[in-house]
Amino acid sequence: MATASLDVVGIGNAIVDVLAHAEDGFLDAHGLAKGAMTLIDAEAAEALYAAMGPAVEISGGSAANTLAGLASLGGQGAFIGKVRNDQLGAVFAHDIRAAGTGFDTEFAADGPPTARCLVLVTPDAQRTMQTYLGAAVDLGPEDVEPGVIESAGVTYLEGYLWDPPRAKAAFLKAAEIAHGAGRRVALSLSDPFCVERHRAEFRDLVENHVDILFANEAEIVALYETADFDSSLEAVRGRCELVALTRSEKGSVVLKGDETHAVAAAPVDRVVDTTGAGDLYAAGFLYGAVRDFAPAECARLGGLAAAEAISHLGARPETPLAALIAAARPAG
Amino acid sequence: MATASLDVVGIGNAIVDVLAHAEDGFLDAHGLAKGAMTLIDAEAAEALYAAMGPAVEISGGSAANTLAGLASLGGQGAFIGKVRNDQLGAVFAHDIRAAGTGFDTEFAADGPPTARCLVLVTPDAQRTMQTYLGAAVDLGPEDVEPGVIESAGVTYLEGYLWDPPRAKAAFLKAAEIAHGAGRRVALSLSDPFCVERHRAEFRDLVENHVDILFANEAEIVALYETADFDSSLEAVRGRCELVALTRSEKGSVVLKGDETHAVAAAPVDRVVDTTGAGDLYAAGFLYGAVRDFAPAECARLGGLAAAEAISHLGARPETPLAALIAAARPAG
Repeated sequence: MATASLDVVGIGNAIVDVLAHAEDGFLDAHGLAKGAMTLIDAEAAEALYAAMGPAVEISGGSAANTLAGLASLGGQGAFIGKVRNDQLGAVFAHDIRAAGTGFDTEFAADGPPTARCLVLVTPDAQRTMQTYLGAAVDLGPEDVEPGVIESAGVTYLEGYLWDPPRAKAAFLKAAEIAHGAGRRVALSLSDPFCVERHRAEFRDLVENHVDILFANEAEIVALYETADFDSSLEAVRGRCELVALTRSEKGSVVLKGDETHAVAAAPVDRVVDTTGAGDLYAAGFLYGAVRDFAPAECARLGGLAAAEAISHLGARPETPLAALIAAARPAG
Repeated sequence: MATASLDVVGIGNAIVDVLAHAEDGFLDAHGLAKGAMTLIDAEAAEALYAAMGPAVEISGGSAANTLAGLASLGGQGAFIGKVRNDQLGAVFAHDIRAAGTGFDTEFAADGPPTARCLVLVTPDAQRTMQTYLGAAVDLGPEDVEPGVIESAGVTYLEGYLWDPPRAKAAFLKAAEIAHGAGRRVALSLSDPFCVERHRAEFRDLVENHVDILFANEAEIVALYETADFDSSLEAVRGRCELVALTRSEKGSVVLKGDETHAVAAAPVDRVVDTTGAGDLYAAGFLYGAVRDFAPAECARLGGLAAAEAISHLGARPETPLAALIAAARPAG
């Protein structure tokens, strides 16, 4: 097996986030499920956008955020995702490339516009996401370049990909190529509602196709329909090589075989916006995992990257993570 | 004279800011004049965008920022400026309307795309701006709706409008209508290089068409080609009803006839990005001026609004300014 020239290749929905502050009353008035990611059509996106406050556009997308975070840590990565050849598509492509991540997926020349996610950040720093998938639904297996997958230590897939129908085939093709080349496959469960939509398939994936699993408490509880976090932890134990479960301010728990590693969250002065916390945790964790760091060290790096992401508006790092991690290195 | 139903109508270049962090070495390598606003063509904008880091898109434009700030203070305003019917144009229109500012200028159906300003924020929080005017150059006198101008207590014009050729005619038409209706005309000198480009015309404007003038130290020194700030202050004294001169951390000085009012800057925990400081000072000042507040109170409101703007990335307020001003009200 050749040495991996890339640390991680990520496949996900290529999305520009449109972030605005909102009161809880706004969520209620528009019937939005707080904290969740909900798919909406073009018409609903227009109507919600017209109703929401002044916004900021920042490139997003779950796996894309992870890859931008990995690059900020000094890792080598590439991203596969579909945008249209429009202004927001140009913004997405610029930002991920400028972050240091390879991005060569062909732009859609027609069809729906580049995907956007309307992110409403409430005063408690929680984010509520309404996603119009637009051009992202056109991602298909033809966009998965085998050479790129083979060259990456980990192929990282977001669970959200299970929503657009053709992306699922891209996802499975990539996983097969990765394993054929002796590489690892990582999956993020993305969102508890996404788990509800695809539970049976996700269980099969975790059991049969995934080496590294990322989930938060709500997602892992949803996946195994357990009563609480501890039961879900035992339900998932041993189903893949590494399981990283994030618990917000309670830090994270990593399962590796019989071992359980609980790691505290990194301190944050002020939580401004939790958008991207899970994505950036995955960035730090994978940076460590491809370097064969111990599970607890992977979790610590994940926690540091997540702490940076939640200290400002938007999911992508504002501070170079490599410098931040170096500064946070334990003495000795 | 009818009571003004609007506090302020602003006319300016309708621009989306593309903000990225950059080191001083990046400015040097690309030959950029630090702290200044430089006009660039489409090709140069593409090249600089490709070279710069991951960015954030936030609606901008000097006068537009001022109107957004005025709305955040609880004032009533409208904005006149030209965007294309493209995605960035939709972003600009959404944001200014969502801020609470009227915006009814017809979108350009063809021609160059919506203007953007590439803003490079260096570690000292200084911003360096490269502007591609795009559709903004199509603003002309036909876009100035006399009824809107007549209904506003102050017509506010940015000096940058002197750059696109047809906007100048819009500017003069608006000033004439405003004065015909017994309203006041305010002007921001915008940028020292802009003053260099249009010095003679700006001096004539200040002398003959403007009631309230905004300038920073570099701009007022450039306008009268004086040796220092104190000489420029005496050079401009008496040329219009009110002159508000901003001096960054040294606060501002307001001239009204023979009176001179020096007001300290509002405290800021951490200066993050000075983009919009002057625009938001004008917002606070004009909010007071249309309510006939004393000059020093106008300056104090300007300083508070500017302090909010420089405490985060981007020019538009993140915190509702009305609440912030209420909290900062002197006791008694």
